[in-house]
Amino acid sequence: MKTYLDCIPCFMHQTLSAGRLATTDELLIKKLLDQSGEMIKEISMEKTPAEVGEIIYASIRNITGVYDPYKEIKEKSIAEAILMLSTLETILEKSPNRLLMAIRMAIAGNVIDFGMRKKFNLTEDMYKILGQEFALFDFAEFQNALSKANTILYIADNAGESVFDRVLIKEMGKKTYYAVREVPVINDVIYEDAVASGIHEVAEIISSGSKAPGTILANCSPEFNQLFQEADLIINKGQGNYEGLSENSRSIFFMLKAKCPVIARDLGIEENDIVLKAINTKT
Amino acid sequence: MKTYLDCIPCFMHQTLSAGRLATTDELLIKKLLDQSGEMIKEISMEKTPAEVGEIIYASIRNITGVYDPYKEIKEKSIAEAILMLSTLETILEKSPNRLLMAIRMAIAGNVIDFGMRKKFNLTEDMYKILGQEFALFDFAEFQNALSKANTILYIADNAGESVFDRVLIKEMGKKTYYAVREVPVINDVIYEDAVASGIHEVAEIISSGSKAPGTILANCSPEFNQLFQEADLIINKGQGNYEGLSENSRSIFFMLKAKCPVIARDLGIEENDIVLKAINTKT
Repeated sequence: MKTYLDCIPCFMHQTLSAGRLATTDELLIKKLLDQSGEMIKEISMEKTPAEVGEIIYASIRNITGVYDPYKEIKEKSIAEAILMLSTLETILEKSPNRLLMAIRMAIAGNVIDFGMRKKFNLTEDMYKILGQEFALFDFAEFQNALSKANTILYIADNAGESVFDRVLIKEMGKKTYYAVREVPVINDVIYEDAVASGIHEVAEIISSGSKAPGTILANCSPEFNQLFQEADLIINKGQGNYEGLSENSRSIFFMLKAKCPVIARDLGIEENDIVLKAINTKT
Repeated sequence: MKTYLDCIPCFMHQTLSAGRLATTDELLIKKLLDQSGEMIKEISMEKTPAEVGEIIYASIRNITGVYDPYKEIKEKSIAEAILMLSTLETILEKSPNRLLMAIRMAIAGNVIDFGMRKKFNLTEDMYKILGQEFALFDFAEFQNALSKANTILYIADNAGESVFDRVLIKEMGKKTYYAVREVPVINDVIYEDAVASGIHEVAEIISSGSKAPGTILANCSPEFNQLFQEADLIINKGQGNYEGLSENSRSIFFMLKAKCPVIARDLGIEENDIVLKAINTKT
């Protein structure tokens, strides 16, 4: 997905939010905003927003010296999600279609997103999504692909959401590689967040090599690129990963809640819709 | 009021909104965003947001060649407000305190603001404000000042709101100078909008000389500055005018709805609160 004009003010919001988490020094935050502002003229609209995000969050790390501004927020999100695990398991047990319910749970976890200005209430939003109609629903294709798959590449999005991912990975019961970011960017999952979410109990955690709030293959590691080509099934969580891979030629299953109007428009759906979308499905 | 860090992403939103009204050429809009982005590092946080707005809207006029991007929107707002006039008069007739009700109406009109991203519904919001508790309520001071005043300087804000201003001006029944912007900026009232609102029937319309979405005395005309010093009573509508005059040493009555979190914080109130605030009241 390319960058839209609406993304530009949003880059400034993200700079401000992350800057405020990294420091209380208003002059330093102004410097971050100056830098993001100056960068706008360099932005090619053909790039994905996630590529721009990579530059912004790197400059926040460099200018403030804070490696992981969202660390505390991520820890809280994971802790909150873990408290919900037993409830999720009870719901799953009572569900007539366990796989579909586990997918809903993984998508429900996608509300935990601190890159957005939208506020969320995890418990409330989870219950809503567990009963929400899908705007795009390629479930039959997904079932088919899953039944044939030996290996799954699961591209992770946010910390906390990772706990919900664990439920789906366990339910699918296949050899799964759980790909996380190489460095902290917004509240996206990095290795230690995945471990704190218990992912190591159900999957092999790998770094995608990405330093962006999304997956831009050219900037990912060769190992990840190889896995991306070889995995039988690719699950791609969230908006940032959608941005980088929406036009890829591989068969990919996107699971997300559309929290941003630009991404909703790109998907041809409405804001707040939930999506299980397949591209390039093999028949 | 100084510029806060939160104002910076908002400047980019305003550039985008006004740019989109002026042109459908995405490259031209990107150029506007590039320019606003580059300007950020030049912004002194000691300036008021309205001063920055002056630069942004001038560059939109210059780059797109469109003199008044909000012209159509302003015409619609005025027409919609005029349709409500007879209802407003009926409400006023039945009101136990006509002056206070007319003030409420003038504040209700302040919801018509296209500089904000907040959506509004004029009819719905008007009825709400006519019954809403004031967060700051210096009505006694206002009554006192009004009773002694021979001349009023009424500093206008938005087109459409101007129709509601007309009700208050008529109700006060004093010699009133209605000060509008020198050039179009957002949906602020300019001379022709004031005439379309029927202001010329109740007041003398003057330009403040301001090209900003607010009143920065240093950038206003000498005639306006003289009036500002000599008028017996100054009524200052809306957020932009508040920004420029909140720290002035003259006695001023601010009437507004706080539509922006930054201005609400500066006033020590909550977003969506309504305000009749006096400063430097003579006793």
